[in-house]
Amino acid sequence: MTIEDWLIAACPSPSAEHRALAEQRQAQLTKPAGSLGRLEQLAIELAALQGTERPRAEKAPIIIFAADHGVTAQGISPFPSEVTVQMLANFAGGGAAISVLARALGQTLTVIDVGTLAETTLPGVIVDKPRRGSRDFSQEPALTPAELAHALASGRRAVARAAEEAPDLLVFGEMGIGNTTSAAAIVCALTGRAPADVAGAGAGLDEQGRRHKANVIAGALERHELLGGSVSPESVLCAVGGLEIAALTGALIAAAQARIPVVVDGFIVSAAALAAVRLNPSCRPWMIFAHRSAERGYTLTTEALDARPLLDLEMRLGEASGAATALPIIRLACALHNGMATFEEAAVSQRNAPC
Amino acid sequence: MTIEDWLIAACPSPSAEHRALAEQRQAQLTKPAGSLGRLEQLAIELAALQGTERPRAEKAPIIIFAADHGVTAQGISPFPSEVTVQMLANFAGGGAAISVLARALGQTLTVIDVGTLAETTLPGVIVDKPRRGSRDFSQEPALTPAELAHALASGRRAVARAAEEAPDLLVFGEMGIGNTTSAAAIVCALTGRAPADVAGAGAGLDEQGRRHKANVIAGALERHELLGGSVSPESVLCAVGGLEIAALTGALIAAAQARIPVVVDGFIVSAAALAAVRLNPSCRPWMIFAHRSAERGYTLTTEALDARPLLDLEMRLGEASGAATALPIIRLACALHNGMATFEEAAVSQRNAPC
Repeated sequence: MTIEDWLIAACPSPSAEHRALAEQRQAQLTKPAGSLGRLEQLAIELAALQGTERPRAEKAPIIIFAADHGVTAQGISPFPSEVTVQMLANFAGGGAAISVLARALGQTLTVIDVGTLAETTLPGVIVDKPRRGSRDFSQEPALTPAELAHALASGRRAVARAAEEAPDLLVFGEMGIGNTTSAAAIVCALTGRAPADVAGAGAGLDEQGRRHKANVIAGALERHELLGGSVSPESVLCAVGGLEIAALTGALIAAAQARIPVVVDGFIVSAAALAAVRLNPSCRPWMIFAHRSAERGYTLTTEALDARPLLDLEMRLGEASGAATALPIIRLACALHNGMATFEEAAVSQRNAPC
Repeated sequence: MTIEDWLIAACPSPSAEHRALAEQRQAQLTKPAGSLGRLEQLAIELAALQGTERPRAEKAPIIIFAADHGVTAQGISPFPSEVTVQMLANFAGGGAAISVLARALGQTLTVIDVGTLAETTLPGVIVDKPRRGSRDFSQEPALTPAELAHALASGRRAVARAAEEAPDLLVFGEMGIGNTTSAAAIVCALTGRAPADVAGAGAGLDEQGRRHKANVIAGALERHELLGGSVSPESVLCAVGGLEIAALTGALIAAAQARIPVVVDGFIVSAAALAAVRLNPSCRPWMIFAHRSAERGYTLTTEALDARPLLDLEMRLGEASGAATALPIIRLACALHNGMATFEEAAVSQRNAPC
């Protein structure tokens, strides 16, 4: 299959000039060099990404991509598919974890139905979907190439709408009963890792359920000839992808092309990030990994991306909850970088000669 | 030596009733059970500590205890002692890391000089000190029993002042050039661990400097007969203590007695926490450990306290910076606990029978 030109168009590089200026500033702030650890690195990186001497993380709209998964027919989730749409209503109603986090952080929450089973438009939800739910990938390819192209473009359109507000960052999350199974299958196909190493408990499978999930994935990898880790990302997404994972893949590439850093949530969004980086490696610098998901396949996914998340609070909810939880940390990193006095300004003695 | 009665008076227990109510509520919120990880545990624990169904972390005044250390004469810090007082001016002037964090978090910052070398009162600093700097503990005991009693009571007085504002939490930090050496000596004496395992780089020693620091500590442990891990905490604090570490010890006990949970910063405050728990074990439940300091002795100190910090951002600054950085996470844990809808309220299907 062919992929559209926009997906592989080069993303801009972070500004080396602003990175150097930020490093110089950090060295002059009234603290032992390096003593703010990852908060220093974060501020420096954000300065380079935003091309500024004063990095910001104030306006960080949260976007949730939602879809359903035919593979739930195989009993791979403890929750029924109808929960996807029920949770969309809960997002809009303000009762979900991410609704609470968005309010607490003063951010807008946009929910985009890129492929749920819903037959009508839900209040407060944008609909941009090629079909209702992916097909059961244990039996047939999940998506046609045209459906995949639509979902990737849905992500791009979401970024274009968000970009109109000139955000400092974007926060991406997802909702979709069954999507840890799709994400695990994608990670297996892209890395060559075994399903037993990647399939996790998802929304709460026991060990027997987890083994069944791994077997369903193993069968699909064989059926669609995805073994060995060398199949193209677009073929992998058609075979075992979810529509929200494809939309996230497109959105991650589009955000990088638009020079907007993205705070990446947990396992599902990281699987999409892996697909995005395999499609277009130049998008990688624009991703800030937020939280080490407790889902089994998370760490090997971020290792494949050479990424190290900021937080490890044993969360495994999705919905952008890990990314939103990291946002205040990113803000504090910016506040410290921009607001601390230099040794000179504060008339504080610098260190003695090394001893 | 004898210790005053208030130090060993029992601290109240967290409310088992409110813990149970909080656990019940978490099980009803619209998310897979346990999927918010440590944010759930944190909300439950805070509900038990605050004796409420709606835990809060809005009002969390930051208190910095500052002192100087005679042992700096032994060349154990890359910064000169005069930096302690210079940094106090920087705190008051708004240019230090903790000044910036306090502003960003909307919290008051109180700085208490419990033993710096300052001869006069600095603007914006409360003075409550028995002497100017501790003695060089490589040569003689750092503090007399009367000086120790004053410092412990300084901490208690600080908590009494803060308690008038009915805070939800207190955030404790410290400033004192040389205090990682005193803290490391205290941890060695209380745990029986070797100085080479506990002494760290502090404000930026190289490996040779760190070995020298460990040797200075080893000599002091021998001189003051502190080997073996069985000397009383009050004797340890007199022998190798710092005035800010003693004040923190008293403050941690007094906060627990006043039913106020404390967010514990990095290595120095954790060393004071160890001394406090050895003096009065009933204060332990009131401590929330914020950030895994990059200082070498940190992890073995918190292991001795059976504590696991929330964050690991490779910070090693002190000044309550790690504790302040964790505050937004604690706030989000409360917001989620209090603000999320239950399955019933949101009409979301609960999980199927376990599969």
